[in-house]
Amino acid sequence: MEAVERGSTSGARSRVLEGYLMATLFYEPSTRTRLSFEAAMRRLGGEVLTTENAREFSSAAKGETLEDTIRTVEGYSDIIVLRHFESGAASRAAATADIPVINAGDGPGQHPTQALLDVYTIEREIGTLDGIKLGLVGDLANGRTVRSLAYLIAKYQNIKIYFVSPDVVKMKDDIKEYLTSQGVEWEESSDLLEVASKCDVIYQTRIQKERFGERIDLYEAARGKYIVDKKVLDVLPKHAVIMHPLPRLDEITVDVDSDPRAAYFRQAKNGLYIRMALLKLLLVGR
Amino acid sequence: MEAVERGSTSGARSRVLEGYLMATLFYEPSTRTRLSFEAAMRRLGGEVLTTENAREFSSAAKGETLEDTIRTVEGYSDIIVLRHFESGAASRAAATADIPVINAGDGPGQHPTQALLDVYTIEREIGTLDGIKLGLVGDLANGRTVRSLAYLIAKYQNIKIYFVSPDVVKMKDDIKEYLTSQGVEWEESSDLLEVASKCDVIYQTRIQKERFGERIDLYEAARGKYIVDKKVLDVLPKHAVIMHPLPRLDEITVDVDSDPRAAYFRQAKNGLYIRMALLKLLLVGR
Amino acid sequence: MEAVERGSTSGARSRVLEGYLMATLFYEPSTRTRLSFEAAMRRLGGEVLTTENAREFSSAAKGETLEDTIRTVEGYSDIIVLRHFESGAASRAAATADIPVINAGDGPGQHPTQALLDVYTIEREIGTLDGIKLGLVGDLANGRTVRSLAYLIAKYQNIKIYFVSPDVVKMKDDIKEYLTSQGVEWEESSDLLEVASKCDVIYQTRIQKERFGERIDLYEAARGKYIVDKKVLDVLPKHAVIMHPLPRLDEITVDVDSDPRAAYFRQAKNGLYIRMALLKLLLVGR
Repeated sequence: MEAVERGSTSGARSRVLEGYLMATLFYEPSTRTRLSFEAAMRRLGGEVLTTENAREFSSAAKGETLEDTIRTVEGYSDIIVLRHFESGAASRAAATADIPVINAGDGPGQHPTQALLDVYTIEREIGTLDGIKLGLVGDLANGRTVRSLAYLIAKYQNIKIYFVSPDVVKMKDDIKEYLTSQGVEWEESSDLLEVASKCDVIYQTRIQKERFGERIDLYEAARGKYIVDKKVLDVLPKHAVIMHPLPRLDEITVDVDSDPRAAYFRQAKNGLYIRMALLKLLLVGR
Repeated sequence: MEAVERGSTSGARSRVLEGYLMATLFYEPSTRTRLSFEAAMRRLGGEVLTTENAREFSSAAKGETLEDTIRTVEGYSDIIVLRHFESGAASRAAATADIPVINAGDGPGQHPTQALLDVYTIEREIGTLDGIKLGLVGDLANGRTVRSLAYLIAKYQNIKIYFVSPDVVKMKDDIKEYLTSQGVEWEESSDLLEVASKCDVIYQTRIQKERFGERIDLYEAARGKYIVDKKVLDVLPKHAVIMHPLPRLDEITVDVDSDPRAAYFRQAKNGLYIRMALLKLLLVGR
Repeated sequence: MEAVERGSTSGARSRVLEGYLMATLFYEPSTRTRLSFEAAMRRLGGEVLTTENAREFSSAAKGETLEDTIRTVEGYSDIIVLRHFESGAASRAAATADIPVINAGDGPGQHPTQALLDVYTIEREIGTLDGIKLGLVGDLANGRTVRSLAYLIAKYQNIKIYFVSPDVVKMKDDIKEYLTSQGVEWEESSDLLEVASKCDVIYQTRIQKERFGERIDLYEAARGKYIVDKKVLDVLPKHAVIMHPLPRLDEITVDVDSDPRAAYFRQAKNGLYIRMALLKLLLVGR
């Protein structure tokens, strides 16, 4: 994989998507996700049209529907990567377009490539998905990533999930009910150390300040409650890993980074590989 | 053309502009136009330098003249695509640069590649330009596209133009006088259905809210007056087409889209082909 | 060099960086510098990931450290070009990354590629660096470029520097002391014509309005004091050149541009060559 990663010497780099053009149509900024998709396309020899301010299409003065924008952009490109602020936008775009549309996050809806890269990371780090014990930590109410991951991991066997979160951002009932219906065991805990001692994966998330509005006091209380630090590493099994969708504030302390079980930057890089695979699959097939 | 459009298999895609670098120098945002030019360049194997916030060059603090900016950017690229908010900016840039400069819209001035793609669309859809009957509908006072199209179409034979617009945004005298001087017949009408029944092309345009300032009442009145809908389709000749420069609000109803005579998304795509042709012509000649 | 510049016919363009991906991570806008780096990468066959709004990474809501951002971006690219608003940011990034990081300006700190292109321009225009007489004119207190150039030129032999600037923006003591310690002769002068008559290079700079805050009166006084115009050309030696890092306001009058000794646009273009050389050196070695 190293040759693909670094490009380096002639011939080493894949040109499998040469001649293909991907449009990144972003209605809200997400530099991290955009870069990951654009790097994936370029690593396979493809080209990119960047649209960071797609909101201009639908601005008050111009007022175009998403469907009209998609019909125009599909005339220029071979695949569209859409980031939108409205849940369901990606479905509407896909229903309109004759070319593939990848959902790169649709508001409070889904962020499916993140869930794919998370599952791929677990498989790559732990060696299996069946039978794992997973601790989901932090903002479980608003965190799109933990919600999507819970859905996806439910497709595997003998999964056990621990929810560890401040009361104000507890996992919502819809996910709990779904997990139960799929035969996935889950329980809530307020003891991060105890959970960490039993898990294969601790998936930490950021408490999202922007969800608390003016209640900064609630945010501050929630934010400091469950921190992954050296004490967590002390009890975490040797084979286990710490994951985080990034960006990270201080919910994982910096001194954890050098531990080999800190998998979050490898996880971010897996996003590149997952998106390379997806682009290749959608544009030229397996 | 499909092979060029979709890139697809090796060899199918043109590399005629490989090694050439186009700079898109946009002093005002126009994602649609920028994407169309950048897609055109990439479809021919060329590379792109994107400048969406070229205004930074001339910002209060920095204060560089357009001429100085052009002298710098021409040092980096082989062709410049300029969008500017001032009429005449493209001419000034072209007078300064030793490389080709394409005008992608200069404020209230011209948008010549739009006029070219409109004429190309008529030729491709109707099969001829000479002898056509053209209905220009909507905002004829402020719409740069209809003004440019009127100028360009006057170069053909036996053209008849109908102007259909709310009183507040009627076609201005300069164009009318020009058409008359070129022997082009024109008349004003307030009956869209009657005009539609006689035309080869109905060219609908958006009423530009931003031109009405605080007179929202006038805008609302103008906006609803001439709508292209099923009733227009009912009287429109079978061979005729509906065009629109996009973006569209509700001046063409969505149920028109599925009619084969709805040509506006094909028209948008023709913008790609026209720009490909123009880039090839300017960079490597015919 | 012309073949590389213009791309033109097949085979003429270098592909030495094919398969390499450069990320431009800009925390403050600098279209000129960004374009220069991106053109350099593309002229050598490399690809680019553009991040004009990297501040989003560290925004209040997201709050990621520069180190975390670098760890993510280095997973996607082969080299990072960083522009930051904080002095020292580039050093921190380089200490974190396993791939090369180029400093494209770090606030009031350094802008090393500018100094390199300035020195290269002097060498190319005058034929030597040793023994030259250099007049630094304008804002010597805040101008990052003249400060960096003074440091770099001190590495050569028998240099004489004249400082010509309004009192409010005089060259600071740290540079003067450094030059003295390196055996570089310098003196201050208030007579631009006399200095120009003796120099090989007049390096003019813009008085930076943004440094004067509300003291517009002081700015206006400083700004008009030393202008490079036809009178300066009249006394300037035939072999000498006028340089300027650009953008230029009116501190060099436009009628100077056509004089062969006006080297500032050639200087800007040299930025492309210097960055091409640097990218090649860092990615594939000499």
